[in-house]
Amino acid sequence: METIVLKFGGSSVADNIKLNIVANKIIDFYHKKNKVIVVVSAQGKTTDNLIKEAKELSYQPDKREMDMLLSTGEQVSVSKLAILLNRLGYKAISLTGWQAGIYTSEENEEAKIEYINTERIQKELAENKIVIIAGFQGISDKKDITTLGRGGSDTTAVAIAAAMKADHCYIFSDVDGVYSTDPNKITDAKKIEELSYTEMLDLSNEGAKVLHNRCVEIAEKYNVLIETGSTFNNNIGTKINNKLEESTVKSIVKNDNLFLITLKQDNYNANMLNKLYITLMENDIIPMHLVNNSISSFYVSFTIKASDLGKFQELLEKELALFSSAFTNISRISLVGYGIVNNKDIMKNTLQILNMNSIQIHSIELEECKLSIMTKEKVNDKVLEQLHHELIQ
Amino acid sequence: METIVLKFGGSSVADNIKLNIVANKIIDFYHKKNKVIVVVSAQGKTTDNLIKEAKELSYQPDKREMDMLLSTGEQVSVSKLAILLNRLGYKAISLTGWQAGIYTSEENEEAKIEYINTERIQKELAENKIVIIAGFQGISDKKDITTLGRGGSDTTAVAIAAAMKADHCYIFSDVDGVYSTDPNKITDAKKIEELSYTEMLDLSNEGAKVLHNRCVEIAEKYNVLIETGSTFNNNIGTKINNKLEESTVKSIVKNDNLFLITLKQDNYNANMLNKLYITLMENDIIPMHLVNNSISSFYVSFTIKASDLGKFQELLEKELALFSSAFTNISRISLVGYGIVNNKDIMKNTLQILNMNSIQIHSIELEECKLSIMTKEKVNDKVLEQLHHELIQ
Repeated sequence: METIVLKFGGSSVADNIKLNIVANKIIDFYHKKNKVIVVVSAQGKTTDNLIKEAKELSYQPDKREMDMLLSTGEQVSVSKLAILLNRLGYKAISLTGWQAGIYTSEENEEAKIEYINTERIQKELAENKIVIIAGFQGISDKKDITTLGRGGSDTTAVAIAAAMKADHCYIFSDVDGVYSTDPNKITDAKKIEELSYTEMLDLSNEGAKVLHNRCVEIAEKYNVLIETGSTFNNNIGTKINNKLEESTVKSIVKNDNLFLITLKQDNYNANMLNKLYITLMENDIIPMHLVNNSISSFYVSFTIKASDLGKFQELLEKELALFSSAFTNISRISLVGYGIVNNKDIMKNTLQILNMNSIQIHSIELEECKLSIMTKEKVNDKVLEQLHHELIQ
Repeated sequence: METIVLKFGGSSVADNIKLNIVANKIIDFYHKKNKVIVVVSAQGKTTDNLIKEAKELSYQPDKREMDMLLSTGEQVSVSKLAILLNRLGYKAISLTGWQAGIYTSEENEEAKIEYINTERIQKELAENKIVIIAGFQGISDKKDITTLGRGGSDTTAVAIAAAMKADHCYIFSDVDGVYSTDPNKITDAKKIEELSYTEMLDLSNEGAKVLHNRCVEIAEKYNVLIETGSTFNNNIGTKINNKLEESTVKSIVKNDNLFLITLKQDNYNANMLNKLYITLMENDIIPMHLVNNSISSFYVSFTIKASDLGKFQELLEKELALFSSAFTNISRISLVGYGIVNNKDIMKNTLQILNMNSIQIHSIELEECKLSIMTKEKVNDKVLEQLHHELIQ
């Protein structure tokens, strides 16, 4: 008898109609005589709303208490789903993270799953129940509730699939799979049938929101076959496994939500870079793609998320006032696919298209499965379309 | 060093302004160098709303899953209160029922507290933290979340006070104490300074909503001194302890939400009463004050809650169609105070006032600390006022 894990995201369970669709999807799988474990996120905007409510009480809420608060979101959605499945005539039981035996590290808001005691899950499955587990949460050895960080429900699903040696782990969301580029921007976008873990990781790192990073890492480590799909249709999605692929571009992603920052200061001091880093990190701004050009003067460039720009400008006026600064909204274009590093045509064609469009390049990173190009300005979607047309078979 | 338990009801923590008032009240107690344990209910209408949402999914939601769902209400309020206290500069930690070691029986929706493992509470108190515990909930030996039934947060507070051998257990709500009669109806109503457990139990049984029944039973068993008070002022409330009182009426309660039902059937059959009972109980209607006058014919009267009348009328048309029936909205007036049974003047004066008002009596029950009279019609508040004026010193 096969054991399968089905994971549904927050927008898939946002209201009663969607809960019904999810319930019917679960019942379909259950009828195929599988042992069915379901992992669910909090409904719709629940987590965001709870965060908002906490911030009304405290500018910087205690992390342990935030996990206590946020974990109620999934507890509500799993119990509701169990109530609905019971009403539809199916034996279902909901489990919180701690009831499901999901033990994590103690870092609140970003805990890591350390081990899963599957005793309770197995007991309930043996009684032919559909087991519905709250995603995103676990328990520390101190018996405090922890959460895994945003998107952590994916991680829960894959970790449970690994611990239960499940035959399949389906991750359902609003979209039915991973696309060769953003289908909302480029009409030619194609669904990708199969991706290797490495390719998926590269895509996640570049901002593709299909799967949470850590979940792919765990899937790779324990060799869990992930299948993505849409909650709302039965199209075949994308499989993520350890298959090696031919040398080709699978997907192109463009991230426009980046600002390139340049900081200068003539009176060079070896501690300046340290000071910059510490100030940024203390204010929860992560400087990415940092390049330190300094020899005798200080000349550093890096990128930050567009959403951090306001906070960063405040810092420039106060703690970082010693630097003269410049910033521009730029794009980062990433091509992902196994063997890109060895396929010279990919690089050649890409640079040619960018050149034809008079786009200046700020930096290029070439890795095993990924080519990332950061431009000096924002790149429009037409260029993305040309790249897609030329490079995706 | 004194240990005290403070309990705040749902309307006391309904919004951020009220949470602030509660937080300041807690801080006041904490500054008196007490070890402070706080028990909190779910915010405002949270529990009602969750029940409504569950009923949209299932006419009869599974009880285990309901407890899973409802227990999130208190988890939200305790974490919010902890976040607020932390922000105000006080070390506070929230605990769910299971984290606080509250072990209960397995009956979902009406679990009984069986024992409390106070280890975690003691550890946190030893670190000078204000410990905030989710009321109304616990954990069964099977590690399922249970709830104690409506008003169960009172029970949590008193049980924890008992387990911790606390010096005081304060129960805060919208009203500052127990009154000699309903202050919303009778302007002369006086606050009662002290009540014995038995008197309080009698009052609770007759519908006074100040304290949950089971909480008074536990307080009596473990000799916990309960002090009621208002969240929103500093007036002295009512103390409930084991003090024996002089023979006097402490409080008068009138319940108008009762229907007196009479069922008849000439073809008497010994099983009819069984059938009646089983039908009612299966439909969650509790027949109270049942009198079986049958000798050769079936002639039974009893009362039901006004809120059950619609359901009962349906049963009369279907399963109980064999009976001819009558029903009237009536009142039940209860006088509570130690020694009522031995004070003949109380009974005499009461009957005189009812007689002067031409009120027909359906039944009289006289107990150690209570006199209850059921009338054959609804009694207006003027009569209650006369009784209060005559009987309360």
